[in-house]
Amino acid sequence: MAKDNVIKNDAITRQEDDFAQWYTDVCRKAELMDYSSVKGFIIYRPYGYAIWEEIQNYLNKRFKDTGHQNVYMPTVIPQSLLQKEKDHVEGFAPECLVATRGGGTELDDPLIIRPTSETLFCEHYAKIISSYRDLPKLYNQWCSVVRWEKTTRPFLRGAEFLWQEGHTMHETEEEARTETLKMLEVYADLGRDLLAIPFTTGRKTDKEKFAGAMETYSIEALMPDGKALQSGTTHYFGTGFSEAFGIKFQGRDGKIYNPHQTSWGVSTRLLGAIIMVHGDDNGLSLPPYVAPIQVVVIPVVQQKPGVIPAARELEKMLKDVDIRVKLDESDKTPGWKYSEYEMKGIPLRVEIGPRDIENGVVTIAVRHDGRKLTVKKEELVETVKYLFKQIHREMYEKAYAYFLEHTTEVQNMDELNAALKKGGYAKAMWCGERTCEEKVKELTTATARCMPFNQIPIGDTCIVCGQPAKKVVLFAKAY
Amino acid sequence: MAKDNVIKNDAITRQEDDFAQWYTDVCRKAELMDYSSVKGFIIYRPYGYAIWEEIQNYLNKRFKDTGHQNVYMPTVIPQSLLQKEKDHVEGFAPECLVATRGGGTELDDPLIIRPTSETLFCEHYAKIISSYRDLPKLYNQWCSVVRWEKTTRPFLRGAEFLWQEGHTMHETEEEARTETLKMLEVYADLGRDLLAIPFTTGRKTDKEKFAGAMETYSIEALMPDGKALQSGTTHYFGTGFSEAFGIKFQGRDGKIYNPHQTSWGVSTRLLGAIIMVHGDDNGLSLPPYVAPIQVVVIPVVQQKPGVIPAARELEKMLKDVDIRVKLDESDKTPGWKYSEYEMKGIPLRVEIGPRDIENGVVTIAVRHDGRKLTVKKEELVETVKYLFKQIHREMYEKAYAYFLEHTTEVQNMDELNAALKKGGYAKAMWCGERTCEEKVKELTTATARCMPFNQIPIGDTCIVCGQPAKKVVLFAKAY
Repeated sequence: MAKDNVIKNDAITRQEDDFAQWYTDVCRKAELMDYSSVKGFIIYRPYGYAIWEEIQNYLNKRFKDTGHQNVYMPTVIPQSLLQKEKDHVEGFAPECLVATRGGGTELDDPLIIRPTSETLFCEHYAKIISSYRDLPKLYNQWCSVVRWEKTTRPFLRGAEFLWQEGHTMHETEEEARTETLKMLEVYADLGRDLLAIPFTTGRKTDKEKFAGAMETYSIEALMPDGKALQSGTTHYFGTGFSEAFGIKFQGRDGKIYNPHQTSWGVSTRLLGAIIMVHGDDNGLSLPPYVAPIQVVVIPVVQQKPGVIPAARELEKMLKDVDIRVKLDESDKTPGWKYSEYEMKGIPLRVEIGPRDIENGVVTIAVRHDGRKLTVKKEELVETVKYLFKQIHREMYEKAYAYFLEHTTEVQNMDELNAALKKGGYAKAMWCGERTCEEKVKELTTATARCMPFNQIPIGDTCIVCGQPAKKVVLFAKAY
Repeated sequence: MAKDNVIKNDAITRQEDDFAQWYTDVCRKAELMDYSSVKGFIIYRPYGYAIWEEIQNYLNKRFKDTGHQNVYMPTVIPQSLLQKEKDHVEGFAPECLVATRGGGTELDDPLIIRPTSETLFCEHYAKIISSYRDLPKLYNQWCSVVRWEKTTRPFLRGAEFLWQEGHTMHETEEEARTETLKMLEVYADLGRDLLAIPFTTGRKTDKEKFAGAMETYSIEALMPDGKALQSGTTHYFGTGFSEAFGIKFQGRDGKIYNPHQTSWGVSTRLLGAIIMVHGDDNGLSLPPYVAPIQVVVIPVVQQKPGVIPAARELEKMLKDVDIRVKLDESDKTPGWKYSEYEMKGIPLRVEIGPRDIENGVVTIAVRHDGRKLTVKKEELVETVKYLFKQIHREMYEKAYAYFLEHTTEVQNMDELNAALKKGGYAKAMWCGERTCEEKVKELTTATARCMPFNQIPIGDTCIVCGQPAKKVVLFAKAY
């Protein structure tokens, strides 16, 4: 379990010196993204995009297993259509990018580049739903959306980002509510199974909910700087949109009803969560199951006869069992390669040199904790598979331990302030009044991240006003 | 080989009555698409989108096997950036959708919703390419593009369509030219292996080439109405863009060069080709390998005990070997189901009823030619696999026979007119002058679809001007 051979990536800022700069450095140096000439519109480079593709693969399977179908809606929304649901347009109007000219002439009805597609789905649903037999409609769309944000940061807040948006219509309120919670569960599973991130699930307060929704739920993750990152949301809309858009169906009793609606989405913001939760001063560190390259094979003293063929054999052994492996037989030095793949966060590095070949062994270096193992060549595949499980669990548990350590129960505003100063969640009782929620924000800049599903009270009175408490809330500063 | 039980879909126009209307009817009735409220922007419904996903799966594998990586570029291009390459902007400016307002304020530099992304890729490449070691760059992007077209038709010409666009940079002209032809070959393979469409490959004339390209190649398919459909293109750019965008690299000799560039793309236009090439008066007819649902299982007299379980067993048998199967155990009549799945072009329908169960057999109906077979249950999987191969070959051969029958060698303008009247390609000798090409268009509305790779002369003189001929050209009316 030696820790030698680890070359530090001096090229990036250290986390403790400037966490925000460290984050940007990793985004650039690990070649996840680049800036374009339009502010807030980033380029998803191959390595960053490949992580998103792994997330897509996982979710597409889960979505299809739960009966959902992919569709594609127009990239533009007529201004008049966006205005049909009052709360919704108020929420999005300030951050719209608006096309006013097409084919050289002014447009009568300007087109909004979609910031979200509820209105488009509703317009379509109004045409294709007429009977309870047409329900449920369980559609999902993979696309990019545009929101004209003033302050942008790679993956965390962009003028354009990639996401999926599910939009479903149901016969009954109960079925729609079940869907809203089911998809939240799928997102939590994504964290647990693929990203090694323990998401906190809960309901948003009315102040924090989505524009036009009756209820919003979210997955929240805690970042190492103590700030929370909302990483996905699901919404129950009731019949608000379906009334506004005239979506009606004949029920089993022959009467006419409006269907109950949900929507839900996760975005490339998840890449930001992965970077921050698992990264360190040497760069990115990817959990094995979401890593586009899970193992890099590096030949040592590769000019010696037999080394390259031996390395290629290892590559083939791993590829044959569907492990995503890259062999780097370029003429760069092993030191450069170690540093490069460490920066890129590849979970395992397998080294093979003349002496290893002689002894029938290979050396495996683990990215996230720096340890090294030597195993017999014929044990490589099994060891790698075992290590994937172990590393995934360790990364998850480390993040979960951080979450536990940084979730502080507070009984009054002083304790709230102290907890927020330490970083992480302040778990507090709240009366349910928006004024108290706003006061917390005003005094601390922290917001109510969610009302967690676990609502066992930790006190009787609201920490702000002292009135009887109704809800357990997690407050935190947030991205 | 009975042909009974085939219920005609009277709901759609017959091909011979009105081919264009038949096409639109199939698009709608097979639930491939729907219109949105913005002209030319269509909704890709689940069944249509699923066909596109099968195409994506095939191409993604081929792209990755040939060393390409997926990326994602911004959805908008600053007007000033689009203007950097003169020919390019002239080609696209008339059909741009332009955003002029963001977050409530006027934009200094209006943003074009991307009609194609050469300029964005070039801007990025200028930043990341500096040495021959950085080459080649082999990037691809899946996205939608917007072109403000006046006349639009589902899948064939849209204000927005889905596509992939590959953009590559190379050290040498030879390597870039090889790439241009290699990707054309991948597209031709897509036709042969997945879509059962025999694409004609060849080079475009200068008049028909892409805005900014030195050479354009295309795959062309012949539709049953005698018109050609350009179904994909690959372009060799030389160093035009890389000079305009200042993309430079230090070569192996230490000197500075501009890299050689290619781009290539296919779009959801391919869905239009599939619909027209294979469809008939009963609706869509899908080749098995691109069909989202390859087999539909229909229980007959399903209320009888044992029928539903037997149908589910068949579903499982097929699913277990990764055949895309759908079991319809809804309470709709078998007649309704036959008609519905015929309209949707599902290659095989498997029926099972009480008598079949008794005899240990199942009935298989083939969509594209209406024949029916009865096979032992235990032979179902092998028979289905065999039928897929056979059907695919038959559909391809039928389309190829049509292509051969409708490719007419012509020696003069009269023969050209006669050939175009019959429908299909007129294969002719051409002097290479644009004026002659324009004259053909003026007199016949036909255009030079391509100069096929097979350039064995069929005469000595240009059919228009009588001067010495330089090229064999396929002329046709086109979509």
